[in-house]
Amino acid sequence: MSTPTGTRAAPVGQAAVGRRPELARLSLNTATTKHLTLPEAAAAAAAAGLSSIGVWRDRVQEVGAEQAARIVADHGLRVSSLCRGGFLTTPDDDAAQVALEDNRLAIREAATLGTRELVMVVGGLPACSAPGGPALPYPAGTPAGSGPDDPARDVLAARERVAERIAELAPYAAGHGVRLVLEALHPMFAADRAVISTLGQALDLAEPFPADVVGVVVDTYHVWWDPDLQRQVARAGAAGRIAGYQVCDWVLPLAAEPLNSRGHVGDGYVDFATVTRWVRDAGYTGDVEVEIFNEQIWAAPAEQTLATMAERHVRHVLPHL
Amino acid sequence: MSTPTGTRAAPVGQAAVGRRPELARLSLNTATTKHLTLPEAAAAAAAAGLSSIGVWRDRVQEVGAEQAARIVADHGLRVSSLCRGGFLTTPDDDAAQVALEDNRLAIREAATLGTRELVMVVGGLPACSAPGGPALPYPAGTPAGSGPDDPARDVLAARERVAERIAELAPYAAGHGVRLVLEALHPMFAADRAVISTLGQALDLAEPFPADVVGVVVDTYHVWWDPDLQRQVARAGAAGRIAGYQVCDWVLPLAAEPLNSRGHVGDGYVDFATVTRWVRDAGYTGDVEVEIFNEQIWAAPAEQTLATMAERHVRHVLPHL
Repeated sequence: MSTPTGTRAAPVGQAAVGRRPELARLSLNTATTKHLTLPEAAAAAAAAGLSSIGVWRDRVQEVGAEQAARIVADHGLRVSSLCRGGFLTTPDDDAAQVALEDNRLAIREAATLGTRELVMVVGGLPACSAPGGPALPYPAGTPAGSGPDDPARDVLAARERVAERIAELAPYAAGHGVRLVLEALHPMFAADRAVISTLGQALDLAEPFPADVVGVVVDTYHVWWDPDLQRQVARAGAAGRIAGYQVCDWVLPLAAEPLNSRGHVGDGYVDFATVTRWVRDAGYTGDVEVEIFNEQIWAAPAEQTLATMAERHVRHVLPHL
Repeated sequence: MSTPTGTRAAPVGQAAVGRRPELARLSLNTATTKHLTLPEAAAAAAAAGLSSIGVWRDRVQEVGAEQAARIVADHGLRVSSLCRGGFLTTPDDDAAQVALEDNRLAIREAATLGTRELVMVVGGLPACSAPGGPALPYPAGTPAGSGPDDPARDVLAARERVAERIAELAPYAAGHGVRLVLEALHPMFAADRAVISTLGQALDLAEPFPADVVGVVVDTYHVWWDPDLQRQVARAGAAGRIAGYQVCDWVLPLAAEPLNSRGHVGDGYVDFATVTRWVRDAGYTGDVEVEIFNEQIWAAPAEQTLATMAERHVRHVLPHL
């Protein structure tokens, strides 16, 4: 994300009067207030005293990227990140060209919004993303063996395609001053959403590229369980690749749609003190985005959601940041 | 598991006449036929032509370990593993002593059953296993910060307790000719069931002990997504620590109780050809246990479940074994 002192900081206007210094690094990701339009989300973030906002492309595209940039600036906010590019795993060449073109558009949108960070959710297995839905179970008459003979389940090949397509997008991103931010998703999403499942794997994929062209985001929900997390956060920091720190909590039981199982910081099982210290000790000085997918939180009034975000930030994250 | 040529092989009796050579390494884990008693499960496995069975402690304890051993032998079967010991993460000293005593009983049961392999599910966070259920969300008045001040969410400390208690159990296991088989569970179970989430982590924990005292099991459901899997399977094989290969498939959507989301081999997204070759290339020559938790499969007739297991084994696993 852009730092508070970055060259892309939005002008500090009238709307910034209510900023709360203790929330200077707290950012509202618009997924947390899913039902708000961008103007509504920006107003809510500013009213709560935040300095930045992470925006999803659907809400940006509703108004257009240039207008979106004005809305955010008019509220005295910075854009901490744009979510999301990616979905690069298709084995189909035509579909891959469509995906790459959409990612180029996302890169231009990020540049227009004045954020350097484009978060990338890289996509899952072809078997999970085939037109018409999952091609499962194996059709009758499937020959013995799967794997290399079964591209739809070949996670190794899917990862290779991600690497190739990141390489294809990197020069375009660099040319627009935008960083491709690889996001490791929790392994329970490996089949259907992202074949990058650990921070270490994201860093391996980022390694061939300059740190200001391909980075990683540390999202507590996705990586808290990783026994190698401390080492990989330090590695990411040493390489200058930590492009964002997203926080929300692992709560149980999982929701019927597991994607929407996330909870407010402090409502679940993540040890935010420890992970936040690792991120701090890795040299990260950027924004802390709260990105929560949760039906109950979406149904709550936005001001209540923002108030809880702020209170949890001050209690569980800020002391360790 | 005991190999077909192992010294503990059950006597080949009358019941073994129906064995199918192509299923010589296929084992029925009794969790797959949850509603069957041990005599029923053993009869079903023998009738399907299998040579071995993996047994859960609840079904063993219903008849007692000695009688269980006789039942299995009378059907001409070997015991591929006993499931399960573990649940070693409590910070409470008294509760820890109870857990250790129960694990010693499990070790004796394994020895009586004639299997060397005791599968260990090591337990989750204290916050998930507190009497009266999860201690969530944070109670009002919780001081700023969590982590080191919050033992219930301290996954690092929970892992340390696992290491200490494995060390305490290891000599007892060795004395009974039983191996403690550490199971990495899918990271979606890290909070509530097992703070071991990767095969590499299980191997790190096993390393201080002889390979015939502490081993690991490769369960496709739990580890298929791991970008480091090939390397860790090879490492496990080189160290002589692969104590079992359990197979079932990752199917979506997850069940309302995610624990019961597993599917028959071939019904989901796992690339069995590739993973099976890695296990084979690591030198594993033991049994392949099918352990499925799935309400629909539990509701199906056992002979149908066994027939599907056999058919999928021959199609998706055996060619690569």
